[in-house]
Amino acid sequence: MEMIEEHRCFEGWQQRWRHHSEVLNCTMTLSVFLPPPVSANPPPVLYWLSGLTCNDENFTTKANAQRIAAQLGIVLVMPDTSPRGDDVADAEGYDLGKGAGFYLNATQAPWAAHYRMYDYLRDELPALVQEHFNVSNRCAISGHSMGGHGALIMALKNPGRFTSVSAFAPIVNPVRVPWGQKAFSAYLGEDQSQWAAWDSCALMAQASAEQQIPTLVDQGDNDQFLADQLQPAQLAEVARQTGWPLTLRIQPGYDHSYFFIASFIEDHLRFHAEHLFAEA
Amino acid sequence: MEMIEEHRCFEGWQQRWRHHSEVLNCTMTLSVFLPPPVSANPPPVLYWLSGLTCNDENFTTKANAQRIAAQLGIVLVMPDTSPRGDDVADAEGYDLGKGAGFYLNATQAPWAAHYRMYDYLRDELPALVQEHFNVSNRCAISGHSMGGHGALIMALKNPGRFTSVSAFAPIVNPVRVPWGQKAFSAYLGEDQSQWAAWDSCALMAQASAEQQIPTLVDQGDNDQFLADQLQPAQLAEVARQTGWPLTLRIQPGYDHSYFFIASFIEDHLRFHAEHLFAEA
Repeated sequence: MEMIEEHRCFEGWQQRWRHHSEVLNCTMTLSVFLPPPVSANPPPVLYWLSGLTCNDENFTTKANAQRIAAQLGIVLVMPDTSPRGDDVADAEGYDLGKGAGFYLNATQAPWAAHYRMYDYLRDELPALVQEHFNVSNRCAISGHSMGGHGALIMALKNPGRFTSVSAFAPIVNPVRVPWGQKAFSAYLGEDQSQWAAWDSCALMAQASAEQQIPTLVDQGDNDQFLADQLQPAQLAEVARQTGWPLTLRIQPGYDHSYFFIASFIEDHLRFHAEHLFAEA
Repeated sequence: MEMIEEHRCFEGWQQRWRHHSEVLNCTMTLSVFLPPPVSANPPPVLYWLSGLTCNDENFTTKANAQRIAAQLGIVLVMPDTSPRGDDVADAEGYDLGKGAGFYLNATQAPWAAHYRMYDYLRDELPALVQEHFNVSNRCAISGHSMGGHGALIMALKNPGRFTSVSAFAPIVNPVRVPWGQKAFSAYLGEDQSQWAAWDSCALMAQASAEQQIPTLVDQGDNDQFLADQLQPAQLAEVARQTGWPLTLRIQPGYDHSYFFIASFIEDHLRFHAEHLFAEA
């Protein structure tokens, strides 16, 4: 881990790190916000997963999450959205390849060599964070759009790992929408029986009651991708059927941009804090 | 005025507009934040002037000023930092030409044809804002670096116009620092007697007591440009000699970035609100 940038920010530190990822077989960059000390205990971690076209800096510079993270004493960890580098496969278009890793493990050529964002997020990144920063083992996860999908599948596939999960305008049912179908066809192949393991609606439908964790989703009703790509009502229906503790808030007039995220990030951090700091 | 973008943001509206500027003789873009109504009175305006290399979007996307502007009921107006377009003169380097207008009226070729940001900000832009938005005639001004210089000279050269002025890491004494000397030589010519009209320290030294308005300056002590380009102590010394109501805060560990601005923008908006909403 090599620090490549550091800025004082809300009495804490906004840092950018570079490291070689064994899992992804490439050099990765990640951003971290370290809040000022607010208690004698090591702070918990909120992982943030960004959407299509983003890297680790979009949320860092645009969401202003550091203000509340500093108040609450939460470390923010913001990884990139795909493997990177000249020898990493890529594609035309913003919705496949670099910047569009979909937080899964690819099985198909030419993607399988590097596109293992799920293993990176599940194993390698948390180990790095534990090793290099003074943090507790409590963590939560959130994300936007493709990153909302990533946050939800990380939580659903790893019961007990996260105290809570939230998302802004997530792709909840990728097997049924164009972004998901394009990405899953490429990364996982045409055998659609392999896709459900990476679909939040399918995963939630199979989850047991013991696996449930508090879940908050915000969705703007003026989001250009709402009808075609996002369809949060699909997840709400599965949650209703399974009794999953999902709060879905439809925010009138808001779109898919970071102006939407900035407007509601405080609610999400306070939601996660309630669970991160609850008595174990 | 043609609206080219609009986003719901903190229950208000973040907009981007394009218009032909008569003064600058080119097409200009500006960003505006309209807060939700907080009273029956039209809201006042805070003008924000950005620094070198910026356009109207840097502050809009990175400072998160909309959160407090929405609470307080202040319209934010964020112009570009120079004239724009293929027929506008430019130069190598980030500190002269496009993105580096220095908020003055150029007198030298090839700059004089378009580089009249001072007249644009003093006359044309406020008239546009009054015409197109429901705003009161009370206004304040703030900015960063080159834009801090711009905010200070706008306030100093137009007594009675602004209720208050503030700046982050401003260039306060451009006639004596490399950025200012390079820009003033190009835009104003080598006759340095013409430069003092655009120098905050010189303007403040000449100002009468009746012209004084509340002034807040924040400066990070880890700012890489502090010693060579900024030197806020020069302005503090003039303020001390003239009794100008300047509060200069040195913020330990902060640098020149938008992480610095985001960390303290709330203080600046609350400072301006105190004066914008004071009984006339």
